[in-house]
Amino acid sequence: VKPFDTQQMIQQLSIDCVIFGYQSQAIKVLIPRLDLPDECWALPGGFIHQNEGIDHAAQRILKERTGLTDIYLEQFRVFGGADRINLALQDHLKTADRDKLAHLGISEVHVQWLAQRFVSIGYYALVDIDKVKPQKSTIDASVDWYPIKNLPTMIMDHHTIIEEALKTLRAHLDERLLGFNLLPDTFTMKELQELYEAVYDTPFARNNFQKKILDLGVLERLEKKFTGAANKAPYLYRFKQ
Amino acid sequence: VKPFDTQQMIQQLSIDCVIFGYQSQAIKVLIPRLDLPDECWALPGGFIHQNEGIDHAAQRILKERTGLTDIYLEQFRVFGGADRINLALQDHLKTADRDKLAHLGISEVHVQWLAQRFVSIGYYALVDIDKVKPQKSTIDASVDWYPIKNLPTMIMDHHTIIEEALKTLRAHLDERLLGFNLLPDTFTMKELQELYEAVYDTPFARNNFQKKILDLGVLERLEKKFTGAANKAPYLYRFKQ
Repeated sequence: VKPFDTQQMIQQLSIDCVIFGYQSQAIKVLIPRLDLPDECWALPGGFIHQNEGIDHAAQRILKERTGLTDIYLEQFRVFGGADRINLALQDHLKTADRDKLAHLGISEVHVQWLAQRFVSIGYYALVDIDKVKPQKSTIDASVDWYPIKNLPTMIMDHHTIIEEALKTLRAHLDERLLGFNLLPDTFTMKELQELYEAVYDTPFARNNFQKKILDLGVLERLEKKFTGAANKAPYLYRFKQ
Repeated sequence: VKPFDTQQMIQQLSIDCVIFGYQSQAIKVLIPRLDLPDECWALPGGFIHQNEGIDHAAQRILKERTGLTDIYLEQFRVFGGADRINLALQDHLKTADRDKLAHLGISEVHVQWLAQRFVSIGYYALVDIDKVKPQKSTIDASVDWYPIKNLPTMIMDHHTIIEEALKTLRAHLDERLLGFNLLPDTFTMKELQELYEAVYDTPFARNNFQKKILDLGVLERLEKKFTGAANKAPYLYRFKQ
């Protein structure tokens, strides 16, 4: 939560972003740890300006957190249970040192504003980890990439939000050919298969996978990858525009 | 818009419902015409109580509009452009007779509340038209079923909301086997094919369709339909629970 003008924001409506990356054969999620006495983690999120469309707000929030523009980003579900109140943050803000809060730009108005119930629009993003420079907000202690199989303890329903985002990624990876957002510009067939295996958390048979992917007609085959042993070198591919 | 306590509602957040039915080989949408001097139509919608989850709010709104409970209902997308302000309604409310508005339970507070920009959560519902008793709200002149190919002039982005709902229905009809929500309990293969043709707006080959559907293993074959000519009578089917 950066200092913000509550008058300029839609009340009780937030955006939470599940930022997926791929590294070391694992799907990872970019998650900040809040700077609170109790260890807790929350999805990067924010609020919507009165004069700003929701997709634009999500792009702005992602740029603040990753430094990236023009990344793949899509809303996937709204989380609106009647009990969506960030109690951990409330408890902390109520007892926190007012001077320290003021130093962070958080006033009494902010505290009351944040104490409301929020309906949150979930967006998921797909990024190339190597291009991201994660940014802490003023209330974050740290921000790191966590493997989807080894997530930290999330506040409220944020674990559910990640699960729903992963379900959506699985449903869309094939039909919308999103894989290239998570990979470098060129890759081998083995690297592409490893990405699919990480997303679906299941092994694929090599021949079947290669046939299925090539039949889609979306890959362009480039020169062989330089490995020093030319006769065994794999081809490089990239997604057609 | 029924009389409501603005203090008890989340501001600037609404729900709009696309209620699909199926009749005379056509997909239809339940749409109220607003009781305004200019002819205009708006999706049935409403607001979210402070102590109410969003899915519960959508169920409540649908019950108010259709008399039905336990109907298939799902959120599919949020509509949040910066310009989502109902100008037609604003213009009317500003100049409308205050006594008439008061009679409808609409006060100055309501008028100001409704003049805000709204982010709207789109839900779509699938109902058996024969079971629905459409209900007018206090600001509706009428409410009717309109064929998807012959919709009236909708306010704001409501036409886009219907288009997006139809896209979602098409994507989900197969994978989630939603068809039974739109049909009577039992039906012939021909009737099921006609439903699919109406949803996808395209003809299917009879043999292919029958094979594909039966291969899914979700239909239970019942006795033959009574037509008076037993040897040519088609079988009835129903969806397995």
